[in-house]
Amino acid sequence: MAYLEPISQEWLIAKRREIHAWPEPGWCEFVSSARVIEHLEKLGFKVLCGLEVINKDYIRGAMKQQIAKFRAAAQDKVDPKILQRLDGATGVVGILETGRPGPTIGFLCNLDALPVTESTDPEHNPTKEGYASQIPGYMHACGHDGHQAVLMGLASWLAANKDQLCGTVKLIFEPGEEGSRGGRPLAQSGIVDDLDYLYVGHLGCDVPGGEVVTAPEKFLCTTKVDFRFKGTPSHAGMQPEVGRNALMAASTASLALMAIPRHGQGMTRVNVGYLRAGEGRNVIASTAEMQVEVRGETEAINNYMFNEAEARVKGAAAMYGCEVESEVMGEAIDFIKDDEVQNNFAEAAKQAKYCTKVSDTMNFNGSDDATVLMRRVQSKGGKAGYVVVGSELKAGHHQAKFEFEEFRLQELFDIYHYLVIKHLGA
Amino acid sequence: MAYLEPISQEWLIAKRREIHAWPEPGWCEFVSSARVIEHLEKLGFKVLCGLEVINKDYIRGAMKQQIAKFRAAAQDKVDPKILQRLDGATGVVGILETGRPGPTIGFLCNLDALPVTESTDPEHNPTKEGYASQIPGYMHACGHDGHQAVLMGLASWLAANKDQLCGTVKLIFEPGEEGSRGGRPLAQSGIVDDLDYLYVGHLGCDVPGGEVVTAPEKFLCTTKVDFRFKGTPSHAGMQPEVGRNALMAASTASLALMAIPRHGQGMTRVNVGYLRAGEGRNVIASTAEMQVEVRGETEAINNYMFNEAEARVKGAAAMYGCEVESEVMGEAIDFIKDDEVQNNFAEAAKQAKYCTKVSDTMNFNGSDDATVLMRRVQSKGGKAGYVVVGSELKAGHHQAKFEFEEFRLQELFDIYHYLVIKHLGA
Amino acid sequence: MAYLEPISQEWLIAKRREIHAWPEPGWCEFVSSARVIEHLEKLGFKVLCGLEVINKDYIRGAMKQQIAKFRAAAQDKVDPKILQRLDGATGVVGILETGRPGPTIGFLCNLDALPVTESTDPEHNPTKEGYASQIPGYMHACGHDGHQAVLMGLASWLAANKDQLCGTVKLIFEPGEEGSRGGRPLAQSGIVDDLDYLYVGHLGCDVPGGEVVTAPEKFLCTTKVDFRFKGTPSHAGMQPEVGRNALMAASTASLALMAIPRHGQGMTRVNVGYLRAGEGRNVIASTAEMQVEVRGETEAINNYMFNEAEARVKGAAAMYGCEVESEVMGEAIDFIKDDEVQNNFAEAAKQAKYCTKVSDTMNFNGSDDATVLMRRVQSKGGKAGYVVVGSELKAGHHQAKFEFEEFRLQELFDIYHYLVIKHLGA
Amino acid sequence: MAYLEPISQEWLIAKRREIHAWPEPGWCEFVSSARVIEHLEKLGFKVLCGLEVINKDYIRGAMKQQIAKFRAAAQDKVDPKILQRLDGATGVVGILETGRPGPTIGFLCNLDALPVTESTDPEHNPTKEGYASQIPGYMHACGHDGHQAVLMGLASWLAANKDQLCGTVKLIFEPGEEGSRGGRPLAQSGIVDDLDYLYVGHLGCDVPGGEVVTAPEKFLCTTKVDFRFKGTPSHAGMQPEVGRNALMAASTASLALMAIPRHGQGMTRVNVGYLRAGEGRNVIASTAEMQVEVRGETEAINNYMFNEAEARVKGAAAMYGCEVESEVMGEAIDFIKDDEVQNNFAEAAKQAKYCTKVSDTMNFNGSDDATVLMRRVQSKGGKAGYVVVGSELKAGHHQAKFEFEEFRLQELFDIYHYLVIKHLGA
Repeated sequence: MAYLEPISQEWLIAKRREIHAWPEPGWCEFVSSARVIEHLEKLGFKVLCGLEVINKDYIRGAMKQQIAKFRAAAQDKVDPKILQRLDGATGVVGILETGRPGPTIGFLCNLDALPVTESTDPEHNPTKEGYASQIPGYMHACGHDGHQAVLMGLASWLAANKDQLCGTVKLIFEPGEEGSRGGRPLAQSGIVDDLDYLYVGHLGCDVPGGEVVTAPEKFLCTTKVDFRFKGTPSHAGMQPEVGRNALMAASTASLALMAIPRHGQGMTRVNVGYLRAGEGRNVIASTAEMQVEVRGETEAINNYMFNEAEARVKGAAAMYGCEVESEVMGEAIDFIKDDEVQNNFAEAAKQAKYCTKVSDTMNFNGSDDATVLMRRVQSKGGKAGYVVVGSELKAGHHQAKFEFEEFRLQELFDIYHYLVIKHLGA
Repeated sequence: MAYLEPISQEWLIAKRREIHAWPEPGWCEFVSSARVIEHLEKLGFKVLCGLEVINKDYIRGAMKQQIAKFRAAAQDKVDPKILQRLDGATGVVGILETGRPGPTIGFLCNLDALPVTESTDPEHNPTKEGYASQIPGYMHACGHDGHQAVLMGLASWLAANKDQLCGTVKLIFEPGEEGSRGGRPLAQSGIVDDLDYLYVGHLGCDVPGGEVVTAPEKFLCTTKVDFRFKGTPSHAGMQPEVGRNALMAASTASLALMAIPRHGQGMTRVNVGYLRAGEGRNVIASTAEMQVEVRGETEAINNYMFNEAEARVKGAAAMYGCEVESEVMGEAIDFIKDDEVQNNFAEAAKQAKYCTKVSDTMNFNGSDDATVLMRRVQSKGGKAGYVVVGSELKAGHHQAKFEFEEFRLQELFDIYHYLVIKHLGA
Repeated sequence: MAYLEPISQEWLIAKRREIHAWPEPGWCEFVSSARVIEHLEKLGFKVLCGLEVINKDYIRGAMKQQIAKFRAAAQDKVDPKILQRLDGATGVVGILETGRPGPTIGFLCNLDALPVTESTDPEHNPTKEGYASQIPGYMHACGHDGHQAVLMGLASWLAANKDQLCGTVKLIFEPGEEGSRGGRPLAQSGIVDDLDYLYVGHLGCDVPGGEVVTAPEKFLCTTKVDFRFKGTPSHAGMQPEVGRNALMAASTASLALMAIPRHGQGMTRVNVGYLRAGEGRNVIASTAEMQVEVRGETEAINNYMFNEAEARVKGAAAMYGCEVESEVMGEAIDFIKDDEVQNNFAEAAKQAKYCTKVSDTMNFNGSDDATVLMRRVQSKGGKAGYVVVGSELKAGHHQAKFEFEEFRLQELFDIYHYLVIKHLGA
Repeated sequence: MAYLEPISQEWLIAKRREIHAWPEPGWCEFVSSARVIEHLEKLGFKVLCGLEVINKDYIRGAMKQQIAKFRAAAQDKVDPKILQRLDGATGVVGILETGRPGPTIGFLCNLDALPVTESTDPEHNPTKEGYASQIPGYMHACGHDGHQAVLMGLASWLAANKDQLCGTVKLIFEPGEEGSRGGRPLAQSGIVDDLDYLYVGHLGCDVPGGEVVTAPEKFLCTTKVDFRFKGTPSHAGMQPEVGRNALMAASTASLALMAIPRHGQGMTRVNVGYLRAGEGRNVIASTAEMQVEVRGETEAINNYMFNEAEARVKGAAAMYGCEVESEVMGEAIDFIKDDEVQNNFAEAAKQAKYCTKVSDTMNFNGSDDATVLMRRVQSKGGKAGYVVVGSELKAGHHQAKFEFEEFRLQELFDIYHYLVIKHLGA
């Protein structure tokens, strides 16, 4: 049986560059969501978006001012009706029902970019080729642009070959993966509850180009938490003794957070990624806020990190007579592999273009709240897995010169394409 | 000889409340400047403003984004022609020439407010009486609103009594006093070079209500300096070891700056009033900036503080493999009193309403870059002085509940009024 | 063929308690060494000790005052001739030559105790049974007392059965294992160069009682380093600004050292275990010294940790105008397993009393400079291995209530005993 | 009337050098006390010492081990009977009763030295002239050696001229002035309750040579306090997460203590002069102790400093899950001048050899618990004062090269001598 093959490597690369040029952070993916919605609806997919696929009770880490700014910036680029559909939340799920009996399988990618300023080095490929970020201070520095392009290409192929397939496909475009924010509200909307299989893929991750890893280990559990300190302002020249210095509390807490001890039973991570304190040069700073994340190889170790973090922050506030409050902003858990899915990935990889080596596992050492969606699928009786498609990188993830090998988009596409035919081929 | 007395205490209080409600920070005083310009021009003053009175080579600590925001907010409230005159700098000087021979005397006040969020406590008078700040995050919490009201009242009186006076009066409305930014560029414009006398007054300053201090001591020399750290971002989960953490460098520097030792020879101060670091929660922070001020009882002690600050900041950057640059943003010096001016203030205070006690001196323990203007006047052969009009305060300067006794505006007005007649009375 | 079995579990326990009561830290094991020397010489072993088995050029972390104190304390308990033999270094190697051809095999244990104050809780077994530490501030809190007892028991058995054995046995009692100090100078003396097999065992290590692990993984490479800061004293009241504060430099360094980032490629550790700074309450502290250790899963990761440590310490010194020098005090490397040795341990464990489970591996997550001796043996063509004999513990290693199950001494003895017969049995 | 003049400048200098060579810290002044006792008894003074002049309920900051060490070192140099008299406390008061009616006047000096290592620079006078400290780590680096020499010379003169004097003289040799420890227990013994006048003098204090200051201002109130942290030890490699790190708590506290804000109402000081933490390199540190002092221009400001210190230390302990306890170790208060005493000092200074200028006041900016004794005298109806005899210094007080001009001993002697004759001359 012959399938149409309308998706070229060039198409994937061009789409990825288009996405790359307009990076939007979590819960702000207005242009990104609209691009997907228009593409999928044109292809005949049933498209759900915004609060249709996001349970709003579980939204965390949504920043009003930032959202307003990106929504405003999107107004020139997006159909107002689509913008309205995204009020309340970004995020898209496209559903293709063949009408023929068969399993329901899902593929997951992420919409959001990072608050990283893209390199302007003339050797940096996006600069050289003219597709660098058009939004100062933000960049697709994690590969999500590539993941989206592959799923959009897959959508095109699926539409073109719909008549030769059975069952149902769901293409899931998750908002707010950075910060582990989108997974939980997507899961709690029930949108993945009917999946027999959920497949997730990621480019890069320090795996060499050509290698595909079919079941990474050491997905770190993580908690994202904001701390907000409140002190008392005073004139730094006349009455310095009256102030209660929130900037000092936050600085002290920062040093102590980064020094939470390693754990003898497994890996840990901690980061204070953002800190803003104070009102003006000659006023004792009365406010401070910080964005923190902790990670642990298991939930118990992650809890140890979180409890230590809270104790240190509270003590630091007490030192300086300040108050402090905390708010959990996101979370991810670890990954329990399904052998069948791992085997499917291995089969798929072996036939994928550019793949030269298939490995069972690696240490992931990071977090991806895809794990929340995968666990949800597993809890409902489905199976789920995570594949890493290696690539030489110009710089590591989240760095200003991050850039993967663009031809690897073909490799990831081939894997997904194989899985569709395996499950849904007539 | 009889003067007209058109200025009532009620007028001063009402004007002060109008000013209080629209607080603008340094170099952003668009509405404030326009209010003065219109008032003075209506009264027949010759008015210079913006770059006519500000030497732009000496402008420091002007923040583009903040200026743009306040300029935009002023567009509904200010004549566009006036706004144009303020492009490049805020600040106003009104000149009244009587046409009769006599000395040239100046009075100085400040236009700017502070980045302090005003209290919403119903007992806080601006809240109770409905004249609280209409600009979230900013507040006239130092008394500059009162100083302006007094000089505007004085302008009215001067205009009404112009025919009975000789010589020339300059009313100087300095921008950016907070941060010690406006004094130097005003001085370098030459606008005070022809003054025979420069009189400066301040309300509050922890002097009890009823007391007037005619020559405060211990004006602290100060340097305002910004430090900017640059590190390297990386993914906090996968490659934490690759990052060069600017947030940690800045936190470490903050603790060390606040711990610069006292000086055995005189008073010192130090404050890290503002700190912003990092790009996102899961990225090792690669940038940080902080706003710092040091003070010293003498220039030598202030230099000691500044040198210590630089050494500590540089060492902290080195600890974390970061680079750091510094930029001086403002400065003030100490105050050398003129006995004649002190005596004039004493005479004036004795006849002022509400004044119950005249004191020679006090420890000012703060900085006011009026000192830069005063030193300029003295260097050109004129005389200069600084008077503090005490007031009971609801909370100290720069605090969210700061509020002076409004009837003290009359007291300061009476002092200035007396000085005008003493020098320029026919 | 029948061997004599003169060593009872009771003998091992009694000997272990005798050792437990007199804990001596590294390079101070005078009583401990003498006890071994007398026991082995009485049994007919050839005994080398002190500088005969220690290459003095590689001695690190020997503290003169501490050594003098423990040598003085030993004078009442030890034959003066033996004390003389230990001048310059502690440490003992006993050699039993059967005179019959055969391999040379070695067993390693450690002589030193820790600067931990033993618990006086009446439920703590050494307290209850009356064999608690007699030296305030020091304790055998790592199991070295047990390791010594087993080798001394093995010596007795070897002597009694010498005529039924072939080849040569070396029993090695390493000084200064804590701090990874003794391994290198022992290795550099050449004393293990002729070994065909080197067997090392450790009790506890968080392995459950009954389980024996035949080839632990994740021995951390480690560097032990001292940092010494030098500043300038001054009177803290009159001239605080003149001092260069070494205590502040060291405190700042401590916080930054404990906050060296985790490494994405493998485990790390860091500890500032000791800090002493300052001369007196009212003097700006002009000296500080700290004892630090870093660890890494590989030599590259350990080097990363060490380089970060040096950079942070140097930057901290610069912040406060101090000088700093560093001295490496000890080191350990990772462990490359020999399959044959692992299999021998497994065979031996299966027949050992109390052993209920034999495991291939575990994460050791600590350091033991036995690895330096093992690598030396391997580099000369021999084989080496490390076995962990699990035990329920009352508290973790290095804690005040540390106590293993004493009957496990029999289990370790049985393993060693089996290995002797395997290699040297007639 | 003619007095005998048996005391030469050479005698004073020689005596001062003898004292300089044997520096003993607070509560350890065995040789120093004995030297005074023998000298005074030989001259016919009634001598009280140890617990006869020290109220033991008020002894603070006495360190047992240090005392034992210095007592042992004194055994070769001091008559055992005298050593016995000093059991329980050091300190001496010599009383000369003329038997003729007249006032009772006292002179105060201090016995103790500092934990400063004396410079070995060949240009340092004690090194060059061979009278440098014979006790490593300790030094008379504050001038107490000179003060003692002057009072011993005064004793000789008083004895020689006793028949020409009336009234009573008390020569008070205070132990433990450094750390502000000796003043309170001396005062509480009642030994100064009968004084009509108490005269205290100090050499140096940053006053130029030739100048004498008759009533210094800004004696800082001070509190000396020890903080002791208690955490939990654990193995830094295997179980770092189990430890509660007292070294980190203490380091964090140190940084925060040195950063207690300045006070708008007056001078402050703070110092962490000594810190010891941890047990060993590879153990999470479970203990830490620090010696701290705070000072304030008034008792209220000193209390502010002390309260801030306690809050910061407690918060730091909480951050790391540690406990902390504090113990006040010493205290001094401010100085209320008596005009009559000031005038007496001025008269006396004008006739003193080498004095070229008499000044009313200076900023002392330090603490001296002579203030506790002076306040006691004043509370009983007597008068008290403090004179500073300026000197060029080779290095500031408490520094390793501190050295005053030795001929200034004559100047201080002349002042005291004049005061004796003024009050008690026949």
